[in-house]
Amino acid sequence: MNIWHALIGRPLKDREEQAVRVGVIEGLSVLAPDALSSVAYGTQEILIELQRAGITALWYVLPISAVIVVLLTFLVISYRQIIRSYPGGGGAYVIGRDTLGADASLIAGAALLIDYTLTVAVSVTAGVAAVVAAFPVLTPWTVGLSVAIVIVLAILNLRGLRESARAFALPTYLFIFMILLMAVVGLFKPLPEAPPWHSYITPPLGAVGLFVVLRAFSSGSSALTGIEAISNGVPIFQEPAPTRARTTLLLLGLFLGSMFLGTSIISYRYHIIPSANTTVLQQLAADIFGRGIFFYGLSFVTMAILAIAANTSFAGFPQLSSIMARDQWMPRMFLSRGDRLVYQNGVIILALVAIILIVGFGGNTTNLIPLYAIGVYLSFTIAMLSLAVKTWRNRTQFSKRAVIILVGMGLMGATLTALVVIVSLITKFTQGAWIVALALPLLIWGMRKIRRHYRAVADELRVTDYSLKPVPAKIVAVVPVNSINRLSIKSLSVALGLAEEVVALHVVRSQEPPHQFEERWEKWNPDPRIKLAVVPTQYRSVVRPVVRYVDLLSHQNPENHVVIILPELIVRYVWEHFLHNQLALTLETVFIFRKNVTVMIMPYKLQGH
Amino acid sequence: MNIWHALIGRPLKDREEQAVRVGVIEGLSVLAPDALSSVAYGTQEILIELQRAGITALWYVLPISAVIVVLLTFLVISYRQIIRSYPGGGGAYVIGRDTLGADASLIAGAALLIDYTLTVAVSVTAGVAAVVAAFPVLTPWTVGLSVAIVIVLAILNLRGLRESARAFALPTYLFIFMILLMAVVGLFKPLPEAPPWHSYITPPLGAVGLFVVLRAFSSGSSALTGIEAISNGVPIFQEPAPTRARTTLLLLGLFLGSMFLGTSIISYRYHIIPSANTTVLQQLAADIFGRGIFFYGLSFVTMAILAIAANTSFAGFPQLSSIMARDQWMPRMFLSRGDRLVYQNGVIILALVAIILIVGFGGNTTNLIPLYAIGVYLSFTIAMLSLAVKTWRNRTQFSKRAVIILVGMGLMGATLTALVVIVSLITKFTQGAWIVALALPLLIWGMRKIRRHYRAVADELRVTDYSLKPVPAKIVAVVPVNSINRLSIKSLSVALGLAEEVVALHVVRSQEPPHQFEERWEKWNPDPRIKLAVVPTQYRSVVRPVVRYVDLLSHQNPENHVVIILPELIVRYVWEHFLHNQLALTLETVFIFRKNVTVMIMPYKLQGH
Repeated sequence: MNIWHALIGRPLKDREEQAVRVGVIEGLSVLAPDALSSVAYGTQEILIELQRAGITALWYVLPISAVIVVLLTFLVISYRQIIRSYPGGGGAYVIGRDTLGADASLIAGAALLIDYTLTVAVSVTAGVAAVVAAFPVLTPWTVGLSVAIVIVLAILNLRGLRESARAFALPTYLFIFMILLMAVVGLFKPLPEAPPWHSYITPPLGAVGLFVVLRAFSSGSSALTGIEAISNGVPIFQEPAPTRARTTLLLLGLFLGSMFLGTSIISYRYHIIPSANTTVLQQLAADIFGRGIFFYGLSFVTMAILAIAANTSFAGFPQLSSIMARDQWMPRMFLSRGDRLVYQNGVIILALVAIILIVGFGGNTTNLIPLYAIGVYLSFTIAMLSLAVKTWRNRTQFSKRAVIILVGMGLMGATLTALVVIVSLITKFTQGAWIVALALPLLIWGMRKIRRHYRAVADELRVTDYSLKPVPAKIVAVVPVNSINRLSIKSLSVALGLAEEVVALHVVRSQEPPHQFEERWEKWNPDPRIKLAVVPTQYRSVVRPVVRYVDLLSHQNPENHVVIILPELIVRYVWEHFLHNQLALTLETVFIFRKNVTVMIMPYKLQGH
Repeated sequence: MNIWHALIGRPLKDREEQAVRVGVIEGLSVLAPDALSSVAYGTQEILIELQRAGITALWYVLPISAVIVVLLTFLVISYRQIIRSYPGGGGAYVIGRDTLGADASLIAGAALLIDYTLTVAVSVTAGVAAVVAAFPVLTPWTVGLSVAIVIVLAILNLRGLRESARAFALPTYLFIFMILLMAVVGLFKPLPEAPPWHSYITPPLGAVGLFVVLRAFSSGSSALTGIEAISNGVPIFQEPAPTRARTTLLLLGLFLGSMFLGTSIISYRYHIIPSANTTVLQQLAADIFGRGIFFYGLSFVTMAILAIAANTSFAGFPQLSSIMARDQWMPRMFLSRGDRLVYQNGVIILALVAIILIVGFGGNTTNLIPLYAIGVYLSFTIAMLSLAVKTWRNRTQFSKRAVIILVGMGLMGATLTALVVIVSLITKFTQGAWIVALALPLLIWGMRKIRRHYRAVADELRVTDYSLKPVPAKIVAVVPVNSINRLSIKSLSVALGLAEEVVALHVVRSQEPPHQFEERWEKWNPDPRIKLAVVPTQYRSVVRPVVRYVDLLSHQNPENHVVIILPELIVRYVWEHFLHNQLALTLETVFIFRKNVTVMIMPYKLQGH
């Protein structure tokens, strides 16, 4: 426990909770990196898809980016609305649950949990891959480095959110500043020469192909993943939490929108053609500022923001899983907050699964990148649809104009996001989308099983009738006695204290003198209430005869409760533990499946040494 | 347990013990391979050492082998005498204990245990190395194959000695037959041509150097390692065990002596010069029978006998460690015989340590070969010296001639074997003998510590005074209650049955409504004997307040025995286990160090599912 507390800090009291929550500025650096980091690849994904239809098709980056920013606006407005309605957090999951029912909410919740897990694995390995590309000497440690980063993230988050907020504020805000600076300079800096290949004339859609545009749109949509995190994690903000969460979301939307749109426009203005050797952001930086400090600074900060994007999941996963655990879809352990008031089991499980993914994929998780969008966009669709339905149901509470806007926006948003899900599933099925198509139903099936189990247990344990009261059980104590010593005396003393009927059980092996112990016992004559039972055995192990005797005893009197008292020597040093028989543990394991039989391990602490 | 029994067979009763013991023929194939396999390298070791002093020095293989066979005769006579005196087995350890005292016996016992462990690692890897040399495609699996063989040996020996006796009879007797056949044919077959380099004249000793001869002698002595195994494992023979053991030892001595002497003589007759590419046995087979079936057959059988030499250790180690455990030098667990009447912990520990050695040395344990002799010869020295001292002390019981023979032989044998220990330690110290020089004192130190611990515990627990009787303890039952349900009702029923004073302990977290549970409790009003204690906490974990309350309780009344009753849900499937809190286990771990506090885990078996 001391090592544990040295790692995660001293236990906190409940009233210290406000102090561990975050404000708007910190909240942005905890919950925004996932979304912001997608600026690093959003525009690039669109350009790569368009390039397949020829270089003139690159023009479409402009309208596609515009549509994505419109979708971003819808999402920000919708999720701000959702935060207002659900100040306890939970985002798409809770609004889906209350509006569309359990099935929809399960899909949204499970999809997000999968997405959060993938995000940790993918973004950490992406960051490490960038570092390893820069320093090839690190190649053998690729997996080790990734795992180490996940562990560091987990520890930071077990200490509390503010710790990671502080650690990650600098790269987050530096990334925002650098991208915006580049966008502004890139927009207004005079171009060195006239563009050689584009005509500023819209190429006809037919020439490009609707499907290419749809693919480019759905790939570019990955830029919006991560903006749901704030709505899931409302309770991590200081009070008034919903207000602060809404402000943070608005800021995130403004930053993300302008960064993404700016990047897309200047990449068109500078005729960036995606290349395998460098990123679009690097090409832009080189074209606008030259290969100087800004170029290398931006490369480094991009690397950092990719790695800490994982941190957003460490905020989102534990919050969402605790909300789903409250609804009994997840194991109860996700509900328990640790000494640092964090849902520590969520943090630990997330880190473990991410580490398994990283190790399983040998540190190369680029294959998982296409999976990102599907889970998040499923939850977007459910959130938008829920919002439309919810607004319509409560339409009397809104002005007519608000109803039209919210319902219209919700339906349009749901259609657009559903489109992204369908296009991604189709185009990326063989590239890995099948994993989500497989994992999602499995996870939902598991969650249903969990809930059924909890329901059944609760039904069985429930007391509806307060006339049901405890009735003193008749206790029979059984004390296995090997020889007469202080250990047996103490066990028998406790046995006499707790039961009317005490049996001292002595097992005699066939090659031992049969009556020796009985004679000693009679000479000792400890207490008239203790009955001595001598059980012969043909076998070597004493477990079998003890089990058989106890089974017989509880068969004769099923109403009795048999308590087997087993002394266990408590030694001072760990190695001494191996010097004593572990009969107590063995018997405890055997009897745990018997009804009305309990093993009581009585520690006997050795004094002298 | 089912998998376990499928592996090792059904449990056996004590009266079935005779059936699992071995006769002379089987005993030889269990206990002889270690000694017999040394024929594969004994002569070769002598030749390698002599070769350093020039080719004429090879003549010395004859007198050296003769001295070794004399030593073998001494050892066989002595150990037959020891078996007669100690029909319970234990060899050098028990005769050393009774004659020279605890220190000498500890040295002999510890040296043999180390030797048995090394034998397993070395002989298995030697066998695998031979196979891998024949089939280089297996190279990547060297370590895996060695570990697998150790596991198979362990399982065979857990099933019982007869199993391994049956499995290994064929290669053992085939090896004996082939070597003896080769010796006889090699002795009498006319030589094709006159010897070119030797003169049949004894080279002067000064020319060779006394030290070279001593080294050759001590290297060749490794041929005798393994003959002590029978005296350690007397109890594995069918009754009359000592007679059968003595017969087996005599047979082993005759076989080993004639095989070893025969090999040495024909290797001189055929002018074998040791080579790095082939073994002396292979050279002999090729010269005498040509490179035909016999040559390949002998190579294969030699490989097999090297590998199964490890099996001798699996018979010797568990027997010796059980005898030393009875004297409290080893942990008690080595005393417990399993369901198959084998000292199973000895088998398992031996296999584990050997596997650690194999993996640690990367499957290349040739460096450990020189260590063989030291441990065994230490035990030989102690056995021979003990025999001399013992005979002298009891000289009145023997005829004068017998006393002279036994004492003289014991002293001469002790001198010769001590010489081997000293020469081996000096010449092979840097080659690995330092490991024995380090491990032996360490092991002895550990054994002394173990005995001290057992003595101290026994002193503390001993009851010398039969007037000391159990006094009923005053029991206070504490039942942590979270809510009113069947679980708490059952726990409280058991609590009422076993204690006068029952406390229902409810922990309220600071953000929960403080009096809600108390009101429900009063409405329920379960039993006037149950006192409700509501403990508020500022922290998240309920462990802290429960521990604090119980500590206070037992501080107020140190005479009371506090029993904490913790219900634990017993689920049907393993995965369901993770759905419930493991509070019971946590509290059991915390309270195991408290005096007069016992945790009673009350299993509550769920019915419905």
